[in-house]
Amino acid sequence: MNADESKPFEPKRPRLHVAMIKEEDGFETNKENNSQDEEYFKSYADISIHEEMLSDAVRTNAYRYAILKNYEMIRGKIVADIGAGTGILSVFCVQAGAKKVFAIEASSMAEQTESIVEENKLSNRITVINKKAEDVAYPEKLDAIVSEWMGYCLLYESMLQSVIDTRDKWLKKEGLMFPATATLYIAAYNDEEYDARLDIWNEFKSMYKVSMESMKKCSKKCISRNVKVRSVPPMSIMSHGQTVCSIDLKTVTVQDLHNIKKQFKLECFGRSTIHGFITWFTVTFPGDITLSTSPYSEDTHWGQTIFYLEEPFDVDQGTLITGEFSLCPNNFKSRFLDININYRVNNGPETKKYYYMNDCIT
Amino acid sequence: MNADESKPFEPKRPRLHVAMIKEEDGFETNKENNSQDEEYFKSYADISIHEEMLSDAVRTNAYRYAILKNYEMIRGKIVADIGAGTGILSVFCVQAGAKKVFAIEASSMAEQTESIVEENKLSNRITVINKKAEDVAYPEKLDAIVSEWMGYCLLYESMLQSVIDTRDKWLKKEGLMFPATATLYIAAYNDEEYDARLDIWNEFKSMYKVSMESMKKCSKKCISRNVKVRSVPPMSIMSHGQTVCSIDLKTVTVQDLHNIKKQFKLECFGRSTIHGFITWFTVTFPGDITLSTSPYSEDTHWGQTIFYLEEPFDVDQGTLITGEFSLCPNNFKSRFLDININYRVNNGPETKKYYYMNDCIT
Repeated sequence: MNADESKPFEPKRPRLHVAMIKEEDGFETNKENNSQDEEYFKSYADISIHEEMLSDAVRTNAYRYAILKNYEMIRGKIVADIGAGTGILSVFCVQAGAKKVFAIEASSMAEQTESIVEENKLSNRITVINKKAEDVAYPEKLDAIVSEWMGYCLLYESMLQSVIDTRDKWLKKEGLMFPATATLYIAAYNDEEYDARLDIWNEFKSMYKVSMESMKKCSKKCISRNVKVRSVPPMSIMSHGQTVCSIDLKTVTVQDLHNIKKQFKLECFGRSTIHGFITWFTVTFPGDITLSTSPYSEDTHWGQTIFYLEEPFDVDQGTLITGEFSLCPNNFKSRFLDININYRVNNGPETKKYYYMNDCIT
Repeated sequence: MNADESKPFEPKRPRLHVAMIKEEDGFETNKENNSQDEEYFKSYADISIHEEMLSDAVRTNAYRYAILKNYEMIRGKIVADIGAGTGILSVFCVQAGAKKVFAIEASSMAEQTESIVEENKLSNRITVINKKAEDVAYPEKLDAIVSEWMGYCLLYESMLQSVIDTRDKWLKKEGLMFPATATLYIAAYNDEEYDARLDIWNEFKSMYKVSMESMKKCSKKCISRNVKVRSVPPMSIMSHGQTVCSIDLKTVTVQDLHNIKKQFKLECFGRSTIHGFITWFTVTFPGDITLSTSPYSEDTHWGQTIFYLEEPFDVDQGTLITGEFSLCPNNFKSRFLDININYRVNNGPETKKYYYMNDCIT
């Protein structure tokens, strides 16, 4: 194992522990979602998430450049910042000349947002509103909506729905969306540490004189059970990335987000073992500014999202992995995702794998 | 910050997500606890916990040596292994000559325990029982109980209660407990990375031209809110450790575990800033074998447990920190802990701080 080549980290963005309230406990769907919202907003009241997001200079500078370089689009305009957090994007908008920014923050973090606005002497330009985006009544229509709504695998957290709601109700017809587009990619993934992780069960035999070979099968199953978030090295990517979801923020509907389904065809680069699929995303802003979470770009706190197979398989150069990727908010807990990846290797049989992207991502 | 001097890690032992089922949701205490048990056992069905515990050679070898070196006490005896996991302690007992071992494992891990027993050709000596310890009826009285029941801060998880229940119902009067004693220590703690963590809010100003000084106060509050688990460097310990809880496994009662309360008096080593209190524990086995999680000993997966103060304070050599430490299982979720630390510096005013050690430990 080479520590430099894989940088595991603990995902800090919300993991939405409310998962543990189960359907069997007799909750209605609505109550369920309200309750999940409550936990969701609570998670953003914790400061370590904001430390992580601001420490991610790739992320924060992408927004900063996008807003400042497009100052002509923002100067004199009315802007909403959905999920403002510390309010940093709102401040960028004022720095770009916005006439008025509404910083919408549903969590108790709003108190800090307000302090930061005061500290920067911008109370006359930024109004902090401690409400859910859906419940805000603006005094006038909006010229632009700025939001950092992206979760792991782009759509975890399902915050985009609140942005769409605000857009539909309040954005002027010619209004701007920051970001303007989002794209999710899939590729074949080789984990060079995979075998070492299984080999640990052999090591225990020499360490403790107890044979544990039988744990390997169980270990494979466990590894494939939970979705992982990691920053992986470029060399672990075994095919080109292929688009499985393209979003135009001006036109996408909530319904669209429930119907993400795309065929993919991945041609392998060379002889290797495929341990899973990996996804990453990019978002773009006006003026060709892109924020990328690709393994070929500088690391971000989003890392990439790994979907391990129960049975890894070997490939050669040109081996074709064809399949279908689909993604949908979970019926009961809409901030979690149901993801299905069905695939076949060359002309082999189809394998279907379901992933529940809940608070057990690690 | 010096990466070598502090080794943060993600606590893998159960964090018991069921915390999110709240009292307001109308659960009865019993149902609550059953539900928490379910999640508790589920957490041990995940293989990564077992990988971590077995990779912790300090822990596993302490049990191995304790069992093998005390083979005269175990040879020909009837033993129960409470919370057997992979069953490794049961195998050690057979290696030491036990006539029969009952490996009690309530989680679905029991299936793997069974496979490992078969793989080691010990089915005639080890009987795996997939039940809660409290529900097991043994065919005869026990000569010894072996269990690795210790959680973070010794008592998180509250598994010891199941061990006590088995002891009271099934252990022969002259029977053995492995471990035999447990001791919890407290000391004053200096976190050399604390200021750097607050300074990050200054750094953001130079990075993004947005002032965030006001986040520091909020950051202090957030840091002190959740209990942390880390392996800290010895130099961060600013006083001798003082015992706040001593357990004799042969005599301790469940009631005793609800009345842990101890005065402490910590004399500081030298000029420093105290950011919190830190606890660690040791357990001993017959024959003077000790497993220590002290910061002066080799790291274990338990690390130490840090209780941050809301307001750090400066001390000199000889500064006295006197106070009271109390610990109790939470009323509603008995696997979580309520911890109160009241303290005063020299003759200063008393500060009282409550910590809820739930699934938010990080």
